[in-house]
Amino acid sequence: MQEVELADQSVACCAGLASAPLGAGDAVELARVFKALGDPVRLRLLSMIASREGGEMCVCELTPAFELSQPTISHHLKLLRQAGLIDGERRGTWVYYWAVPATMNRLASVLRSPPRERV
Amino acid sequence: MQEVELADQSVACCAGLASAPLGAGDAVELARVFKALGDPVRLRLLSMIASREGGEMCVCELTPAFELSQPTISHHLKLLRQAGLIDGERRGTWVYYWAVPATMNRLASVLRSPPRERV
Repeated sequence: MQEVELADQSVACCAGLASAPLGAGDAVELARVFKALGDPVRLRLLSMIASREGGEMCVCELTPAFELSQPTISHHLKLLRQAGLIDGERRGTWVYYWAVPATMNRLASVLRSPPRERV
Repeated sequence: MQEVELADQSVACCAGLASAPLGAGDAVELARVFKALGDPVRLRLLSMIASREGGEMCVCELTPAFELSQPTISHHLKLLRQAGLIDGERRGTWVYYWAVPATMNRLASVLRSPPRERV
């Protein structure tokens, strides 16, 4: 769980991309989270979880939506979780996942700041 | 230039990740843009360009900021341009680049929509 918290803090660190040149360390941390989003299956998993009525989703409901093995889906979910985009907990047989809006909103803020006007 | 416009349209296609499950086709297009952001050097290049007073930057100013070869920097700039995050034009000896705020803002919108509340 600690790596999720670290990722979350690191995303909080960075001002908007357009407000000042990004430092090398911040760029490494941010790139890790964007890289987690840079895969179609992971984007669909995150969207399925984040849009789910009730706010969370059992891994047993996620796997049948893809023609991929359970270990492959679990690997993608692990990368989303390490990036702080989702979190989850085991209840009995299954793990349940939910989105972490704070991380998504911070990424949005990093992207949203207005670029300098061209002169 | 056409590929930049196509990427730009594809990002416009998608509602927020949390509003409804993302379709497979939309996920492929969006993942391509997020993947372009999933590298520290590309994030720093984009941030340098987007935060530059005057709104644009010569490739001749970008390369010295990194301990990387000119072809490597050009490759990263090409990926950012194909993703619709920057655009550029040659003037005389050098290519000048500027950020495309529309693409960054659309990605921010995709991330920003409020997830469902957990019940």
